[in-house]
Amino acid sequence: MSMIVDRRELDFVLFELLDVESLLRHPRFHAYDRSAIQQMLDMAQKIAEQKFLPHAAEADANEPVIVDGKVKLPAATGAALRDYAEAGFFALPFSEEVGGLQAPWFLHTVITGMFSCANASVTNYAFLTIAAANLLSAFGSNTLRQTLLPPMLEGRWFGTMCLSEPQAGSSLGDITTTATERTDGLFRIKGTKMWISGGDHEISENIVHMVLAKIPGGPAGTKGISLFLVPKRRVGPDGTPGPLNNIALAGLNHKMGQRGTTNCLLNFGESGECLGYLIGEPHRGIEYMFHMMNEARIGVGHASTMAALGGYLHSAEYARTRTQGRRPDQKNPASPQVPIIEHADIRRMLLAQKAAAEGAQALCLYCAALVDELAILDDPNEKQWKASLLGLLTPVVKSWPSEHCLEANKWAIQILGGYGYTRDFPLERFYRDNRLNHIHEGTFGIQGMDLVGRKVGGDRGEALDRFVTMMRETATAALGIEELQPEAWRLDGCLDALVETTQALLACEDPLLRLANATVYLDAFGHIVLGWIWLRKALAATAALARSDLSEADRTFYEGKLVTCRYFSRYELPHSMTRLALCKSLEATCLDAPARIFGE
Amino acid sequence: MSMIVDRRELDFVLFELLDVESLLRHPRFHAYDRSAIQQMLDMAQKIAEQKFLPHAAEADANEPVIVDGKVKLPAATGAALRDYAEAGFFALPFSEEVGGLQAPWFLHTVITGMFSCANASVTNYAFLTIAAANLLSAFGSNTLRQTLLPPMLEGRWFGTMCLSEPQAGSSLGDITTTATERTDGLFRIKGTKMWISGGDHEISENIVHMVLAKIPGGPAGTKGISLFLVPKRRVGPDGTPGPLNNIALAGLNHKMGQRGTTNCLLNFGESGECLGYLIGEPHRGIEYMFHMMNEARIGVGHASTMAALGGYLHSAEYARTRTQGRRPDQKNPASPQVPIIEHADIRRMLLAQKAAAEGAQALCLYCAALVDELAILDDPNEKQWKASLLGLLTPVVKSWPSEHCLEANKWAIQILGGYGYTRDFPLERFYRDNRLNHIHEGTFGIQGMDLVGRKVGGDRGEALDRFVTMMRETATAALGIEELQPEAWRLDGCLDALVETTQALLACEDPLLRLANATVYLDAFGHIVLGWIWLRKALAATAALARSDLSEADRTFYEGKLVTCRYFSRYELPHSMTRLALCKSLEATCLDAPARIFGE
Repeated sequence: MSMIVDRRELDFVLFELLDVESLLRHPRFHAYDRSAIQQMLDMAQKIAEQKFLPHAAEADANEPVIVDGKVKLPAATGAALRDYAEAGFFALPFSEEVGGLQAPWFLHTVITGMFSCANASVTNYAFLTIAAANLLSAFGSNTLRQTLLPPMLEGRWFGTMCLSEPQAGSSLGDITTTATERTDGLFRIKGTKMWISGGDHEISENIVHMVLAKIPGGPAGTKGISLFLVPKRRVGPDGTPGPLNNIALAGLNHKMGQRGTTNCLLNFGESGECLGYLIGEPHRGIEYMFHMMNEARIGVGHASTMAALGGYLHSAEYARTRTQGRRPDQKNPASPQVPIIEHADIRRMLLAQKAAAEGAQALCLYCAALVDELAILDDPNEKQWKASLLGLLTPVVKSWPSEHCLEANKWAIQILGGYGYTRDFPLERFYRDNRLNHIHEGTFGIQGMDLVGRKVGGDRGEALDRFVTMMRETATAALGIEELQPEAWRLDGCLDALVETTQALLACEDPLLRLANATVYLDAFGHIVLGWIWLRKALAATAALARSDLSEADRTFYEGKLVTCRYFSRYELPHSMTRLALCKSLEATCLDAPARIFGE
Repeated sequence: MSMIVDRRELDFVLFELLDVESLLRHPRFHAYDRSAIQQMLDMAQKIAEQKFLPHAAEADANEPVIVDGKVKLPAATGAALRDYAEAGFFALPFSEEVGGLQAPWFLHTVITGMFSCANASVTNYAFLTIAAANLLSAFGSNTLRQTLLPPMLEGRWFGTMCLSEPQAGSSLGDITTTATERTDGLFRIKGTKMWISGGDHEISENIVHMVLAKIPGGPAGTKGISLFLVPKRRVGPDGTPGPLNNIALAGLNHKMGQRGTTNCLLNFGESGECLGYLIGEPHRGIEYMFHMMNEARIGVGHASTMAALGGYLHSAEYARTRTQGRRPDQKNPASPQVPIIEHADIRRMLLAQKAAAEGAQALCLYCAALVDELAILDDPNEKQWKASLLGLLTPVVKSWPSEHCLEANKWAIQILGGYGYTRDFPLERFYRDNRLNHIHEGTFGIQGMDLVGRKVGGDRGEALDRFVTMMRETATAALGIEELQPEAWRLDGCLDALVETTQALLACEDPLLRLANATVYLDAFGHIVLGWIWLRKALAATAALARSDLSEADRTFYEGKLVTCRYFSRYELPHSMTRLALCKSLEATCLDAPARIFGE
């Protein structure tokens, strides 16, 4: 059994739940039918298991260090990424016209996820390179794309995203890095960037930094931010890397997890001219970044999800094989100990993980498939609606896994007891790695404000209403199946509460009070979305179980979906009611709490 | 402002909330009045801040290693513990008749907590030594006590608890270590012990292991377990340490946190005779261990609490000083950034921590004061009741902080964002250290079974009923104060639900189904206990606020109690209703889930 992917579950989600084959019929994805996808997954799984997984503990234990001014990484890190490059995965989601493999985004997501589960901190280098190339591909000039995309898509040059600065993390409008235009159209970049993952190393021929900076004289705040491409080594007209571009490594951060990824403080143009290329038009940097935000946030949520899946797979294997204790009704102390999976509380912790990991995975892939739909839809109304739906789900797909898949990792450790707390097993690493996901790419609080302020507030709940109608349809369908009725009623009740709470928030005229309830609202909304996902899974499983040709293994598989739906509906979903009731009351305790009570 | 203790809060809890001065009037505590206690706290705080705190990151970063067969620790670890010994803290809670300082247990708890917040993994050596000495003092023969207690109380010899084995952690009845009597009354110990914190090192002159083992021919299971004292070096008749006693260090565990504490696999008597002394009578080892369990579990809960307090104090300081972003109603991007404490969501995360840390601290000290009461009570009925109350609260005081103070540490990291995720701040260390507390000294699941099976089930809910009555009295008192009415009603409603749910569990005739709901019940019960604690705090604060002579600082302090009570009551307490509703329905999803759905 693989410890980085559940292929049976993937088949279920992709082909039964999401019916991605209907997407694949579009000419854009002409190279990808079901069998081609299985082949890609086979290849990715093999490389991830053979080249990434064995090296994960080593990458964690041997943090990058600076030797003679250069970053030193374990040799296996660069070697693993070269294998990743050779398999073509850097080029996977890009259009054929720029030299990509034009795969659907959901396939890229699934494949990145396997690597992330195997070895998150090494996979980050690829994740960031693809994110940077994605920006370049979408908004760069033809010349820049022709020169710089090929080495990135070949995985010879890596990329980074340089947004934060020491004084400006969540508040990007306050960055102070400047970009001053030269007479030749290039820009002089000057400033300090913080938390730059993959910011410096020697494992690629060059590093392409996508840098947010301000052109002097522009508007204040986020409206004066532009996007620049700033290479570590200057690039000659023939596209070869030349002399260094004066980006100084000012320090490495030492983190709780994700230790295999260099995380840097970089000084641009401190001791010499640092040249950058403007991407797109001046002052539109934030807009460009936001254009890529949906994909990036799905990626973060999915990385979190895959850590939970890894924890689940490991702890389930342990629970099947570790014997300890007896059932409470077995009074003979000389009777043999039982595998701990026989204890109901161990199964509770397995169900909690299964519900989180498999639920979040389906949500992430649902969102990734929406990205693909948006790329191929012609009907402007449908496109507009799907864009709104994806916009609504983006804060959920980023934050729900960051919260609840981290919690899943906590239970994975718990199942192993003392063993889970040691570095002999990967569970504590998953937990450490996963803690980052609530912080980067927009914190939990930022996601809440995005949902309540922009996504729900922006259209006065219109897209949400339509999404609620979709979820009600699922509940209605499930009401027709006796076994699913209690879970269908519960979801339906939650949807009523969601609608009422949303109305209360929208009716609240004080933006401070409204937003003070945003994070709690987001968490409740996320639970309801997951409840909907699980009810959809249960419906698909019920349909499958009605087939007469099912193997014993398949029967068990679908039965597992029903049990997990029940678990989520009964143990988890009611918490969303509690949270919504709080929001609906426009609770002001946190807003009104005087700062002085926290000391001075 | 101290980062390891809130002395103002301690004063409030000890002298206003718990009125420990009435305890101190008993002759047993003749040496301790309020001013003596303050002096002890001053001294402890000073040593903890000057000798433990500065070394905490170093102890974490420099895990113990084996060099030439011996365990090597940072020099500062031994030095800090010598300062701790010199101050007399090893002798603090022991009777004067065995050479102790006869301090109340609550004082020992508070002092250990400061050290734990400053540097948990170094404090563990003292914590374990005191636990071992506690067992020896309670059940050892006069000869053993006279010989071995003095060097332990002087902190020259350290101690450990050797319960778990590789195949037997939670299931102690399955240990296989044997103890075979020699003709001279000593026992030959043979077997392997796992997870032994402080199990080997060179920072004390000797190590006294308290070892559970089975005398061949005894009853099966836990009823055949005896307790032995097994020194690392054999002890001469004059009490001096002699030759090694054949306890081989078979390996060190590499943990997620608590890295400064050696954690060992020990082989007893593998390559030569290992001699142990029987403590008390044969086959009563588990009973003796359980006698110490209340104190040990308060200690674990309190260590978890103090990690949360440390996280709270650090993140509150950060929130006051770090500027980032603007209030949502400030539209001018050129206006200055505000301290992040101005954001409602940051205050939500501060309140969550404050509610957990200060609430759990009051609960731990309430339980510690019950230990003291039990030591001085004469009336057998009252003693019986207080013992039952402490028994009922023990699973809560162990598990509630392990769960919710860990969560508090998560929010502390979140407030600092990327900075919180680095090892430049102690928050990620608190989070890593704290994760152990749900595992050792009885896992979360074990605590749930203890509560439902033994504590509530044992007397058919009698002690719980009396405790509920106590909590109702607090709610009734709070109903008389307008400001507290909503919180009083909420607690009262939770108590109704608790009573009904308890009746449903007790009426359930299937022990498997009853215990399958135990962990969720424990978590709900814990929340209600904390709700009661917070309402008591709010009542005390209301009384204080009525005084006309309050300083501005005191007024702010008490106001903080009211706000935090409101937070806990509104944001947290309702979750207990959700959990109780689940238990009341005797939910069987986890019990019935077939093991095969988790893979094979």
